[in-house]
Amino acid sequence: MNRNAIYRFLFCLLVVPLYALTQPVNLMPMPQQLTWGEGTFRLTSEFTIAVEGEAAPRLYHAATRALRRLSGRTGLFFAQDFITQESKSDTSQLQIICERPATVALGEDESYSLTVDAKSILLACKSDLGGLRGLETMLQLLQSDEAGYFFPEVIIEDAPRFPWRGLLIDVCRHWLPLEVIKRNLDGMAAVKMNVFHWHLTEDQGFRIESKVFPRLHELGSDGFYFTQAQVREIIDYAGDRGIRVIPEFDMPGHATSWFVGHPELASAPGPYTIERRWGVKDPVMDPTKEYTYEFLDKFLGEMAQLFPDEYMHIGGDENNGVHWNANAGIQKYMKEHNIPDNHALQAYFNNRILNILTKYGKKMVGWDEILHDEMPTDIVIQSWRGPEFLVRSARKGYMGILSNGYYIDLIQPAEFHYLNDPVPSDSALTDVEKSRILGGEATSWAELVTPETVDSRIWPRTACIAERLWSPVEVRDVEDMYRRLDAISFQLEELGLTHIKNYDMMLRRLTGNRDIGALKVFVDVLEPVKKYQRHRQGITYTQYSPMTRVVDAARPESMTARQFNQAVARFLMDGNAKDAAIIMRWFKIWQDNHAELLSIIKASPILWEMESLSQDLADLAGTGLEATALLQAGKKAEQSWLENAKIVIAGAGKPRGQTELMVVAGVEQLIMALAEK
Amino acid sequence: MNRNAIYRFLFCLLVVPLYALTQPVNLMPMPQQLTWGEGTFRLTSEFTIAVEGEAAPRLYHAATRALRRLSGRTGLFFAQDFITQESKSDTSQLQIICERPATVALGEDESYSLTVDAKSILLACKSDLGGLRGLETMLQLLQSDEAGYFFPEVIIEDAPRFPWRGLLIDVCRHWLPLEVIKRNLDGMAAVKMNVFHWHLTEDQGFRIESKVFPRLHELGSDGFYFTQAQVREIIDYAGDRGIRVIPEFDMPGHATSWFVGHPELASAPGPYTIERRWGVKDPVMDPTKEYTYEFLDKFLGEMAQLFPDEYMHIGGDENNGVHWNANAGIQKYMKEHNIPDNHALQAYFNNRILNILTKYGKKMVGWDEILHDEMPTDIVIQSWRGPEFLVRSARKGYMGILSNGYYIDLIQPAEFHYLNDPVPSDSALTDVEKSRILGGEATSWAELVTPETVDSRIWPRTACIAERLWSPVEVRDVEDMYRRLDAISFQLEELGLTHIKNYDMMLRRLTGNRDIGALKVFVDVLEPVKKYQRHRQGITYTQYSPMTRVVDAARPESMTARQFNQAVARFLMDGNAKDAAIIMRWFKIWQDNHAELLSIIKASPILWEMESLSQDLADLAGTGLEATALLQAGKKAEQSWLENAKIVIAGAGKPRGQTELMVVAGVEQLIMALAEK
Repeated sequence: MNRNAIYRFLFCLLVVPLYALTQPVNLMPMPQQLTWGEGTFRLTSEFTIAVEGEAAPRLYHAATRALRRLSGRTGLFFAQDFITQESKSDTSQLQIICERPATVALGEDESYSLTVDAKSILLACKSDLGGLRGLETMLQLLQSDEAGYFFPEVIIEDAPRFPWRGLLIDVCRHWLPLEVIKRNLDGMAAVKMNVFHWHLTEDQGFRIESKVFPRLHELGSDGFYFTQAQVREIIDYAGDRGIRVIPEFDMPGHATSWFVGHPELASAPGPYTIERRWGVKDPVMDPTKEYTYEFLDKFLGEMAQLFPDEYMHIGGDENNGVHWNANAGIQKYMKEHNIPDNHALQAYFNNRILNILTKYGKKMVGWDEILHDEMPTDIVIQSWRGPEFLVRSARKGYMGILSNGYYIDLIQPAEFHYLNDPVPSDSALTDVEKSRILGGEATSWAELVTPETVDSRIWPRTACIAERLWSPVEVRDVEDMYRRLDAISFQLEELGLTHIKNYDMMLRRLTGNRDIGALKVFVDVLEPVKKYQRHRQGITYTQYSPMTRVVDAARPESMTARQFNQAVARFLMDGNAKDAAIIMRWFKIWQDNHAELLSIIKASPILWEMESLSQDLADLAGTGLEATALLQAGKKAEQSWLENAKIVIAGAGKPRGQTELMVVAGVEQLIMALAEK
Repeated sequence: MNRNAIYRFLFCLLVVPLYALTQPVNLMPMPQQLTWGEGTFRLTSEFTIAVEGEAAPRLYHAATRALRRLSGRTGLFFAQDFITQESKSDTSQLQIICERPATVALGEDESYSLTVDAKSILLACKSDLGGLRGLETMLQLLQSDEAGYFFPEVIIEDAPRFPWRGLLIDVCRHWLPLEVIKRNLDGMAAVKMNVFHWHLTEDQGFRIESKVFPRLHELGSDGFYFTQAQVREIIDYAGDRGIRVIPEFDMPGHATSWFVGHPELASAPGPYTIERRWGVKDPVMDPTKEYTYEFLDKFLGEMAQLFPDEYMHIGGDENNGVHWNANAGIQKYMKEHNIPDNHALQAYFNNRILNILTKYGKKMVGWDEILHDEMPTDIVIQSWRGPEFLVRSARKGYMGILSNGYYIDLIQPAEFHYLNDPVPSDSALTDVEKSRILGGEATSWAELVTPETVDSRIWPRTACIAERLWSPVEVRDVEDMYRRLDAISFQLEELGLTHIKNYDMMLRRLTGNRDIGALKVFVDVLEPVKKYQRHRQGITYTQYSPMTRVVDAARPESMTARQFNQAVARFLMDGNAKDAAIIMRWFKIWQDNHAELLSIIKASPILWEMESLSQDLADLAGTGLEATALLQAGKKAEQSWLENAKIVIAGAGKPRGQTELMVVAGVEQLIMALAEK
């Protein structure tokens, strides 16, 4: 252990702030402290791993998985098969030293130190969760050159900024089966996230087996639900990756699917059927009946036994009060009990539920709306309506997590999420108030995703949210984030995530097995319309609408468009011929693409909705070519040409098939530059 | 029902043999009888489905899935959500008429009639299994043109040639989890296969939970096994698709993993560990102990309860007898009981097992080796060693299924499997003997596959085996099969199968996220070495060897090479300039490819093993270019040039990285043509 003592001493001397970076690095999230050495640790088939100290089995499992992933990437035939307690450490190149087994719970120590020198790697951690996090860092460090695979010499000291770094997956609006959850848990672990928020009940589906009230899942799920054995499997799988599982049972609203089997819980008589459309619906539990609480006591008691985490989420959002207002009994009850309004009635309901959860040893998490002065301060508020709600709850003494700004289902760029900080550096909160903000959660709502598309809506953008919640507040270089995001996105693919490979697959289907080249050129510069626009363009989506159109295949963020628009900006800044060449090359590709794509579109009716946009891209490219040529020649544009160009831009800027051309902005910049001459 | 009566009458008039085809068709397997009409049925969002008559729920489920798949392909927003017994038929465009619910068992009626006219579609079947098969045919009929999506008018009468059309999946050598099985069951259903042979126990893993003897899976599986709940889930999933599930518990050999927890079953004392390498191993059950039968009685009794199918597979293959020979007690027992040799001893064992199976109402299936004159004739012999064994067993009165020639893990071309007929048209068997041949099974042995690669080893080639087992014996046009196979392969992707999309994914990993273009040009003309060669080239594979190299990414059959070699053959036949242009284009691509690929190879050590083969492809292309030019000019080659060309060909013909360049044959043809001048 002498060597370790020396390393620890070296850490004290060598750890320096992040700005001391001397080479590009593909880590995400960035560690707290990192110092590069000069040399390399060469990876060969002799590589072995040993765990010393006290660790839960999960660290052995994680070490074995890390060995397999290294083998998969490098093709090296490692002699070691499983890392077990018997694995010898004195000859092992990677030594993991763990002080104690972790509890997968809020606040567990996740820190680790990772030291790579030319001869060996040392990973030291307090709890095995730190070991898991450190192994992921090590995997991200792997590089290759003409001499083989290697890890660069480095000393890393790392720990998370926030203790709650979550991903919500809605499995209700569209059913997402077990393997989708598992591969996303692997993705979460790869970027050091530690809370899986499982949105299990909704108007559109009751997705968990209840043995106490089997009519809930039997009648509320179309047969698509997780058995309790599967729930345990997921909890084990997540726990093995250091991830807590927090179930959400949304109440009193968003609960139509409960009422299919149990209409007696509802505020209106029913009968009920599973809701097939989206939005805020009227059905809501009746908070004035004792039966409701007796039922929920039994149900939540059953769930409290199933889910080991200390926290349980009761939803509480978007109750529109319509059925409460229409129910004479409820109105009478409110008058008799001096309950002034629906918000107060919901607070009463929440308090009753809180008593039930407390009885079962659980703490409550809920959305913004559960905040009410009557609630005790040991609940956790999940803020979805805006950062001001998070600030307000922190000031009132409540713990909070941020989801506003992390709604990845709204198809906004990574940059937007990345710069959204739960505690911005200019926060006016006191230190005590700040400490109540536990972190945040990305939310994968499922109105518009299927098992085929959901990964591409979660990844890679969620990785930058993971970094926001793990890394120091000052890590916020957007360009560097995008560079690293590309590398991490690629690595996530080895975990079985389909966010990259299903793109071509969906394009193949769109073309009916024709060559996808032309379609890809086109869709590469499209993005789905943002926020809630997709529901506001004349299409009424249901649970069974096709999710296989161009808008579903298109990636949330067009990297081609981003690079193009940046090249335009550089060109306009300094007139660089290289940038002009890049721009012109793209324009020519887009101009020529339409003719080829048109024959594909004609033969594939599912593509018809895109025909005019493909034409517009060609027209836009033609205009762009002329504009670039004029700018390069230092010439002015005719007024009539400018007017026509603006018409082309306005036309190309209109969404088609619920997608937008993301290169319009760049061309518009060129036209504006010409117009200003 | 008048309309149906009319249709039935029309069937009698119109059904004509297969040769009456008037247009290309992408059906696989080809139906028994098929007559095209002139018109089309136009698919719109008004399309609805109704089921009449008596059907099991599976037909409603299958109809609902068919509606979703149509919606996914076409982007049509169908108003109908689920097809249920309430779905009205009088307004439905697709009417399914089913006489009775099916039993998913050997010999169940799978016939159907499908009639598409301009206004409606009628699918009639005796049992709902026929309905399932007919729905898959209908889905394969979908086409599109500039007026939208449509089904061509057609009348199909169809039924399978063989009642046993199976796919064996080995989940032991490498663990393959639940979702791999499910998506492959979907693939099987799409090509009308009806037996999933689940190879559940092996030297390398005991992959099923036993509640009676939990040490079997606890110590024999590394934790990778199917729980009984998962087994029931798979049986239900398969049954919903009209697929029988036949479990195989391989004994007395191939059983090392049993002995880890139960060494007392073995013929040598142990202790045992899970076998990590491949091949025929010595460990074998002790057939002379009563304990063995008491144990197997309890175990098989448990399994007989779990698996509803009438048949159970006991393996019986590849017992090398080493441990029997070495065990004095066994030798003594054999002498005392006049058991002359190990084959007789195994027959004794099999007979005892047969008694157990019979007690539990099961019939026995086993590999070739179980055939012994002492066995009764109600067992089913699965022939893996050669068609002569199938013939022999049929002559002796045994039922048989063919797997020899269907070993898809041996990476042979589709054509090879396709032309392998369980009952060839020149078979010397009598009709009674022929009737004993129930069909066949493709076998996906798992020494060299992982969840990432297994689909590409099963599909699309298994689809042509499915056709061999379903379609008339005279359907054997290889070129037409390849044309249809490409269309079916693409359609299989919508079921979640990864055989296409994981190719690019694996190439991305091989390049470390660099551009895969050059690597793809190269790997597109490679195939893995065939049969058992991969184990005979100096690499010792274990259960944990990386399965991520070029050889694992390469497809079993290079369609590029096939097309190239065909273009060469055509060119040599008639000197067509068009073919020469095709050949020359490829040669130029391959010649230029090496320089670009070399920089990728240098930076990706996992690709180093391929460097010289990439160089050889460039050299081969150079030689091919010169040869084509000489042939086009009608010139002779110098002797020294010919000698050098032969050296180039011999060099390029040597496997590298366990792959072979499949375009060597075409170039060799060119050189031979020159040499003959």
